[in-house]
Amino acid sequence: MNVTVSGRSQPFRTVTFNAATNCVHLIEQRLLPHEFKIVATADFRETARAIRDMVVRGAGAIGATAAYGLAQGARAFRGHDSKKFGAHCQAVYQTLAAARPTAVDPLNAMRRVLSALAGGETVSEKQSLALAAAEEFANEDVRHCEAIGRHGAKLVRNGMNILTHCNAGWLAFVDVGSATAPLYAAKAQGKKFHVFCDETRPRCQGATLTAWELAQEGIAHHVIADNAAGHLMQRGEIDLVIVGSDRVVGRTGEVANKIGTYTKAVLAARHKIPFYVAIPLSTIDWNLKRGSDIPIEERHESEVLGAWGAISNPESGSRIPPLGKRAYVRVANATSPARNPGFDVTPAELVTRIITPAGIFKPGELWKKRREPGFGKC
Amino acid sequence: MNVTVSGRSQPFRTVTFNAATNCVHLIEQRLLPHEFKIVATADFRETARAIRDMVVRGAGAIGATAAYGLAQGARAFRGHDSKKFGAHCQAVYQTLAAARPTAVDPLNAMRRVLSALAGGETVSEKQSLALAAAEEFANEDVRHCEAIGRHGAKLVRNGMNILTHCNAGWLAFVDVGSATAPLYAAKAQGKKFHVFCDETRPRCQGATLTAWELAQEGIAHHVIADNAAGHLMQRGEIDLVIVGSDRVVGRTGEVANKIGTYTKAVLAARHKIPFYVAIPLSTIDWNLKRGSDIPIEERHESEVLGAWGAISNPESGSRIPPLGKRAYVRVANATSPARNPGFDVTPAELVTRIITPAGIFKPGELWKKRREPGFGKC
Repeated sequence: MNVTVSGRSQPFRTVTFNAATNCVHLIEQRLLPHEFKIVATADFRETARAIRDMVVRGAGAIGATAAYGLAQGARAFRGHDSKKFGAHCQAVYQTLAAARPTAVDPLNAMRRVLSALAGGETVSEKQSLALAAAEEFANEDVRHCEAIGRHGAKLVRNGMNILTHCNAGWLAFVDVGSATAPLYAAKAQGKKFHVFCDETRPRCQGATLTAWELAQEGIAHHVIADNAAGHLMQRGEIDLVIVGSDRVVGRTGEVANKIGTYTKAVLAARHKIPFYVAIPLSTIDWNLKRGSDIPIEERHESEVLGAWGAISNPESGSRIPPLGKRAYVRVANATSPARNPGFDVTPAELVTRIITPAGIFKPGELWKKRREPGFGKC
Repeated sequence: MNVTVSGRSQPFRTVTFNAATNCVHLIEQRLLPHEFKIVATADFRETARAIRDMVVRGAGAIGATAAYGLAQGARAFRGHDSKKFGAHCQAVYQTLAAARPTAVDPLNAMRRVLSALAGGETVSEKQSLALAAAEEFANEDVRHCEAIGRHGAKLVRNGMNILTHCNAGWLAFVDVGSATAPLYAAKAQGKKFHVFCDETRPRCQGATLTAWELAQEGIAHHVIADNAAGHLMQRGEIDLVIVGSDRVVGRTGEVANKIGTYTKAVLAARHKIPFYVAIPLSTIDWNLKRGSDIPIEERHESEVLGAWGAISNPESGSRIPPLGKRAYVRVANATSPARNPGFDVTPAELVTRIITPAGIFKPGELWKKRREPGFGKC
């Protein structure tokens, strides 16, 4: 999508590869929204560190980064011994896989690269195939998100107010995003609408990342406290909710997503506001029996007890403030502990439809589709 | 309630009066939770400034502060001319009334002081009566909160997890508080329970004030993001919700309170968790027709776009961190605006019961009680 750099709007992807320099280029997401910077990782170890240290985050984005990282490692191999090359690639794979041990996308992405390079005869051929497979993985991620956008854009009508929670935007994928894809597609079709971004405490990905994305694309939006959506729904100020997901249970249609998603689904149901979940098919877990089996990560309490931001003058409001250095402020009482569950599970009955690259489905329809092409369980 | 100062737990009220020095003593609430300090205002103008600048906040607390401020002003009058004294008191009243023009409690409190001093013959007698009336107002505020505690404590059972939103604690009254009163009374009865404090974005009164109060009283608690309560209810980790209110509509039983209260009520109803509202009778508005007539204040967007806290090291968690200077950090994207409704209205159907000093009632019962002693509409 577009980012305004030095006053000019330019297209960027979250992750790209420079074949000439054998570098992976990443948007340094830890500096957002206060600073936009592209970093280049010079070898696969640096790429693994970038994944581990959250320079890049989001299922699609870390999948593509790992795929590129594996191609990068493969291409750095000097010599013609296929056996040594194979051992080298396995070591690269292990290093990248260990960078985010609970994530499934890097593994899936890298398996595709390994299986592609197996088809080559010479080391040099394998190296070319590895890069081609990584590029194809990244391009496919973009095509899937674009397809989500094509299907989802039909739901967006002129004058609508749309609520979104957390960031399932292009920063979490290679481009376009899942929950944001229908917004970007509708904008491209000339539709006029307005977005409310839940700030999404405690990590505030809505206020930081989603708001930044929408501002870059010129989409009208306001940040709101997570507490405000219920009141806005009561007053008829929200017409549609679209969120992403970390895992959808294929068998039941339950949706695991950032903490607070369930609350928004309950409110939407009360106010008869449609609640949509936008996901690539890779987000569907076909093995899990039920949503309550999903382990809910309890994150560090400091996220709840304070906030990260740029030291600033509150009076400046939404005019660009004189942003100072990044700091953590302790908000809560110093001796109070916090609980910090990172995710929650929304039951299928509260989900109006699930928007996928293959079309829009009721949550209960997914299981019947499991043997169709692209739907996994293959 | 109790505050640990220099390692020793001591009783304090939010607002007191020193007759010898003619000073109002206030807990400087803007420094909480990171610093505990009592400030003394030396004349009624300083007292008015303390109300205006939010040194003191909360209906009961600013009511008592205004009452004391009026007595303070009256007692500072030198001379024996009753007419001049009357004009002086009117000027003091106007100054204090202008300090928080939308609040009703300071006006009600000061009218009681004016009506008491009218009963005196001499200036000196009037001055004594003014102080006695202010003291009586403050003591009555405490008695009302204690009565809320007596009734509400019956709802608290051993082993319960209780959710509260925002701060309707003793800092918002002269002492004891409304939503916290049942907790303090149950604690005094030896009951063991645990409280979840919603952080209550954007101003975080739950994470700052309520968590500080509970820590001072030794009540087990955790701060949570406003997003987390739904998930905790889903997992059976919340048994009871108690909140305060800024205004209850006597005719309908609707409850206006801090933004996010409505959301918690919707969640509680879904999970069949009792949702209680604790208020003094002065919070009931007998004139309003319906809750949707309550004007919802839209506050400054900077509250949502960032956070105030003490610059700190996030790693220190709930161990007492080395707190640095107080600062505002901009969290949200710099060019994004925010919406910031300060309050919401919860319909009566979602309120299990209303805890008052006169007993515990269904929201629909209030209107029938309006002519009973103490219930207002007199």
